Amino acid sequence: MSIRIGIDLMGGDHAPREVVHGIRRYVDQSSTSAQLTLIGDPAEALPLLQEFAIPDTNYKLHPTTEVIGMHEHPTRALKEKPNSSIAQGFRLLASGEIDAFLSAGNTGAMLVGTLFSIQALEGVIRPTMGTVMPKLNGRTGLILDVGLNADCKPEHLNQFAVMGAVYAKHMLGIENPKVGLLNVGEEEGKGNLLAQATYPLLRDNQSIQFIGNIEGRDLMSEKADVMVCEGFTGNIVLKMAESLYDMAKHTGIKHPFLDRFHFENYGGTPVLGVRKPVIVGHGISGSLAFCNMINLAQQMIETDILGKMAQEIARHSAS
Amino acid sequence: MSIRIGIDLMGGDHAPREVVHGIRRYVDQSSTSAQLTLIGDPAEALPLLQEFAIPDTNYKLHPTTEVIGMHEHPTRALKEKPNSSIAQGFRLLASGEIDAFLSAGNTGAMLVGTLFSIQALEGVIRPTMGTVMPKLNGRTGLILDVGLNADCKPEHLNQFAVMGAVYAKHMLGIENPKVGLLNVGEEEGKGNLLAQATYPLLRDNQSIQFIGNIEGRDLMSEKADVMVCEGFTGNIVLKMAESLYDMAKHTGIKHPFLDRFHFENYGGTPVLGVRKPVIVGHGISGSLAFCNMINLAQQMIETDILGKMAQEIARHSAS
Repeated sequence: MSIRIGIDLMGGDHAPREVVHGIRRYVDQSSTSAQLTLIGDPAEALPLLQEFAIPDTNYKLHPTTEVIGMHEHPTRALKEKPNSSIAQGFRLLASGEIDAFLSAGNTGAMLVGTLFSIQALEGVIRPTMGTVMPKLNGRTGLILDVGLNADCKPEHLNQFAVMGAVYAKHMLGIENPKVGLLNVGEEEGKGNLLAQATYPLLRDNQSIQFIGNIEGRDLMSEKADVMVCEGFTGNIVLKMAESLYDMAKHTGIKHPFLDRFHFENYGGTPVLGVRKPVIVGHGISGSLAFCNMINLAQQMIETDILGKMAQEIARHSAS
Repeated sequence: MSIRIGIDLMGGDHAPREVVHGIRRYVDQSSTSAQLTLIGDPAEALPLLQEFAIPDTNYKLHPTTEVIGMHEHPTRALKEKPNSSIAQGFRLLASGEIDAFLSAGNTGAMLVGTLFSIQALEGVIRPTMGTVMPKLNGRTGLILDVGLNADCKPEHLNQFAVMGAVYAKHMLGIENPKVGLLNVGEEEGKGNLLAQATYPLLRDNQSIQFIGNIEGRDLMSEKADVMVCEGFTGNIVLKMAESLYDMAKHTGIKHPFLDRFHFENYGGTPVLGVRKPVIVGHGISGSLAFCNMINLAQQMIETDILGKMAQEIARHSAS
């Protein structure tokens, strides 16, 4: 049975046109294998699906009548707009009609929807979000949490490390990934209270290869593949990293390394530690971002990344 | 009476040669006005002072016999090595024989020495450290705290904002500087518990022009001149920013904007909120960094920046 990916046609500043354009880019790829469930307003969607000549063998349309705006209150909007594309996406995901859901719409609604419609994996205290970080040696690292959990406890970070290592291995292809704790100094004992209390947990964690503390200067270096922090610092680091691409454009610097910071290249940010893949996109996503969000969803399903996380969390909890 | 600046000749990976080379660069400038007290081992210092032909009208040598190593325990080292260059520097600063002290030696010893030898300004709960951040519009911002206070309370950040605004005005020449709270979203109510609790304090703070939350993508933008955060996030942002210069070198990118991230251009990091200027340098400082650390000390004394901070903190506390 083929993979079924649900796509919010109405989410994002450039929806639905850029979403459909992204779908065109996706179906043009040789690696394309998913059946797409397109969730949105048929009156807006059908002309675009025709314009971009999306083969009707590739998708089915799930009609909706409402849209959650970018600045609406998440919980209220989900409740008051049950026929919105985001609410319907989570309904389809929860009922098993789709295997993954992605949207560049209201981020808060996506996160509330994920946490309430799709349960956390058995044993996971806090789901998290991670994003890739380009490394100067050409490889790619992972930093997490990048904003889902602004306040964390040490055991949360310890689980993020486990989930991040699984992601790095199976999604980024890094055998035995090096896990580092993002901190203000190299030595054990450095840091704020959270980092100080987290260090011994990571050191004693048998599920990961912990290499100690890393600093802000190591984010782009090869020192660690998986970089663990709470979501406040991680979100600021992520947005600073993304701004390097804008900085390059602003200053006229052209270099492949800086191009790698363009968020459209990785598409969106996956929620980790939940039972089914949910991918949250930037509001300003263009067609490349949507294409890569679909690719990311496909890869997450094909690798059964969340199933592998569940196994590793169970092993970690038992040890 | 001329300004008297104390310089640790023995501190840093390239001391004392690069320190003396930096002094040469300092005395070569037309703006040079300080009398230098050079603190270190005469056997090592005198040949270098001769080699670099430092005029003996510019300095006097304060001989010491001990050195605190880069990895020694700060409190213990200061106690056990009273005749070290760092311990002597703080003795001279506390007794009024010098007006400022700078070193690229053991950072911990510099901070412990500052907090114990030089008192906090009246009303300052926590001294802080701030560092400049290049802005894409050609201007320069200030981010603080960058590592002195890894765990903070809202009132600490509120005072950092006041001290940062004074620094931006009188040291960076920014009239009515815009103060932003570094956070994970733009709207009030976003953030971790600390940021959420800090926002209303900054909003109601009559001593500053608060422009709301800023995000990681705004660090290099003109949105805020003074960027306030706790020292954990600030330290990671600072080191990530400094690494942009190394990234440029590694990738072969040449651009004046990235050159501005080279720490030697601003020299060292001042401690703010204490009674006398102390400047902490990078261990890897070269002559340019030492020259600029002396310039920074001179400017801090000439502008009476710490006196102005004391006035503003008193006004803020009274309001």
